[in-house]
Amino acid sequence: MKKIGVGLLGFGTIGAGVVEGLQKNGKLLSDRIGLEIEIRRIADLDLERDRGVKIDRAILTQDARAVVDDPACEVIIELIGGTTLARELILRAIALGKPVVTANKALLAEHGAEIFRLARAKGVDIYFEASVGGGIPIIRALREGLVANRIDSLYAILNGTCNYILTRMESEAQKFDRVLKDAQAAGYAEADPGLDIDGHDTAHKALILASLAYGCQIPMDKVHVEGIRGLAEVDMENALALGYRIKLLAVIHRQNEEIEVRVHPTLVPLKHLLASVSGVFNAVLVNGDVVGPTLYYGRGAGRLPTASAVIGDLADVARNLSLGTPGRVPALTEYAPDIRFRPVGDIESRYYLRISVLDRPGVLGQIASILGRYGISIASVIQKEAHVGRHVGVVIVTHRARELDFDAALTEIDAMPAVSSRTVRYRIEDFDGQ
Amino acid sequence: MKKIGVGLLGFGTIGAGVVEGLQKNGKLLSDRIGLEIEIRRIADLDLERDRGVKIDRAILTQDARAVVDDPACEVIIELIGGTTLARELILRAIALGKPVVTANKALLAEHGAEIFRLARAKGVDIYFEASVGGGIPIIRALREGLVANRIDSLYAILNGTCNYILTRMESEAQKFDRVLKDAQAAGYAEADPGLDIDGHDTAHKALILASLAYGCQIPMDKVHVEGIRGLAEVDMENALALGYRIKLLAVIHRQNEEIEVRVHPTLVPLKHLLASVSGVFNAVLVNGDVVGPTLYYGRGAGRLPTASAVIGDLADVARNLSLGTPGRVPALTEYAPDIRFRPVGDIESRYYLRISVLDRPGVLGQIASILGRYGISIASVIQKEAHVGRHVGVVIVTHRARELDFDAALTEIDAMPAVSSRTVRYRIEDFDGQ
Repeated sequence: MKKIGVGLLGFGTIGAGVVEGLQKNGKLLSDRIGLEIEIRRIADLDLERDRGVKIDRAILTQDARAVVDDPACEVIIELIGGTTLARELILRAIALGKPVVTANKALLAEHGAEIFRLARAKGVDIYFEASVGGGIPIIRALREGLVANRIDSLYAILNGTCNYILTRMESEAQKFDRVLKDAQAAGYAEADPGLDIDGHDTAHKALILASLAYGCQIPMDKVHVEGIRGLAEVDMENALALGYRIKLLAVIHRQNEEIEVRVHPTLVPLKHLLASVSGVFNAVLVNGDVVGPTLYYGRGAGRLPTASAVIGDLADVARNLSLGTPGRVPALTEYAPDIRFRPVGDIESRYYLRISVLDRPGVLGQIASILGRYGISIASVIQKEAHVGRHVGVVIVTHRARELDFDAALTEIDAMPAVSSRTVRYRIEDFDGQ
Repeated sequence: MKKIGVGLLGFGTIGAGVVEGLQKNGKLLSDRIGLEIEIRRIADLDLERDRGVKIDRAILTQDARAVVDDPACEVIIELIGGTTLARELILRAIALGKPVVTANKALLAEHGAEIFRLARAKGVDIYFEASVGGGIPIIRALREGLVANRIDSLYAILNGTCNYILTRMESEAQKFDRVLKDAQAAGYAEADPGLDIDGHDTAHKALILASLAYGCQIPMDKVHVEGIRGLAEVDMENALALGYRIKLLAVIHRQNEEIEVRVHPTLVPLKHLLASVSGVFNAVLVNGDVVGPTLYYGRGAGRLPTASAVIGDLADVARNLSLGTPGRVPALTEYAPDIRFRPVGDIESRYYLRISVLDRPGVLGQIASILGRYGISIASVIQKEAHVGRHVGVVIVTHRARELDFDAALTEIDAMPAVSSRTVRYRIEDFDGQ
């Protein structure tokens, strides 16, 4: 059986998972694809640590460039992360005509244009299923399975850490900071959690999905990002009482030849499938104009789920090498370079507002009239009884209105003397009725 | 741009959907795959009926064999259905070296071995994404995306008609026969509904998924099939009261190197994602030993969703034609020809039982002691109050036990003088804790 030699860059959690997956199911994989995948070199700075998998120590090196350059390594797997050395190594591999498999969403979001351009010029494969949704084969679905469809919209839960925090906040009625600390202690969140909880990781993944869906390399500054940091329990409880669950959602949407890509905490109706996605799981809902809604669900991160995606890509790349058909499915086909983006001020949404007011006569009327002046109509209001003269949270659910009008109305509302702190606002998603 | 000529066999609902999909998004498809797909001939017995799509009437013919033989038709799409003419035409196309795209699950379930063998011998592609799960790219996920995984189990809702009937029975508290009649009137169920409601359609699809998952062509007689015909409202209500929803489920399971493939009405815990799949939607839960659980959801049937899958396959086949790589991903790689099947008597499950008894002293004790004698322990019992001497339904939920023991115990129970009709029994699925 033909052998394909692989060079692995990065022997951390995922790298060890890839080695474990290949050791576990290598024979089965060969039976299925008719090729043998062989890890020939592994580069990592740490040559000593036990990763829980057995390897021949002789294949370990600290010199990643030497692995890329080694003729025995026909395919390069990049699992180093970051956007400096990883970028250099990937470009070096492509320049040498070697296909690359990577899980590096930050790199693709920031330097995808450059990497894909070189891969196209050199006729070299670059595969990145593991960069979005862990083990869920969503890139494959979007790029191949749903190729007949114009994508109307795409809604996704893409960050396991955030979803884990939100799930635990709800199930244990805990505060954000407390759950975050627990998650860090348990290894579900990084010591520096900003990339996850401020929404950037989700934004990188959303950018990759949107770029594939719409045929253009979307610049990072077109993605509107809000995270879940400091989300208050009371808003979670209010949402539940209203029939919603708060999720950090990536929303990708096409309307009138304009697309919007945004990431923010979102009220999802409890009976929608995405509301049932809990813990570290991810899910992607894709609305295609031919197929209708389809949904993909699975573990969004972790050693083995991510390894499953990397090995799936390896199989493709190995087939292409063996058949001499690199570039069979281009990384990104750019057929819509002049696509227009909707400025975030122009998007329309329903809103959940929690306004902290001094409970005195006429305040609610004032708020309603400001909203009305900006064309924002109120769908429902909850104001719990409180002592006159005390602060109270007024919860308002609105009908659809334009973002800029909300901004203007909330600026006025927050300037009212009776309003004691900045109004909390979250968008409500209705999923085009799906 | 290179053109790929297609011959379409069958211009019914799905056939017209494929034409519509290509007309709608043909330009987009070409942008994405770099090839132009052109329908060159269409065969159907009915040359007159308006299908709601514009075509050049000159390409229509009643002679399907002539379409297969026409050199202008490089790819054949088979949407005739049935297992006679369709089989002949597909074998004819393969013999001519022409790749085939089909949605015909019955044909693949019954004659897959013959068709795949010829395709392998001739080095010709046969693609069949549309045969299972409508527009959901589940074949692609199983065969390519999850290629790194040994499949531990697979649970699926695969028949839209049955799921529609079950959903309406529950939401409207309607009888089976009434909902079936409505579904027939609305076109959601066939005039002869047996293929759907007796579980055979689901069984065909389960067989295809299991064959792909386990690397062998599974014979139809290894699939245990029970349908939903005559399902009683009371069992649906009891299930809900116990925290379950009844679904027609395909259960595919591997344990100790034996696999089981079965289709039957099943109590699914309400909080499980599969319990939320309603109406004509399908879903497939795949548990892989590397990736863990993943789930795929979408419309399981219908003109356009099925067309989306057919066109996705067309794109693959066209790429393979253009690159000269037919057979790149074999239809079915048989690497486990000697796999063993677990006889249905040996499977283990929890059970829901509804026993119709005359309400008189000692009856429940007798039933419990018969179950106990066969090693079946009772998890819970519901017996509603009734007039002494009247018939009453005793609902028993059991712990796990072996099927053969249930058979024996129920034979004894049903022979009790106090038991007035055959005991109703449905399996309960716990999804390996997923």
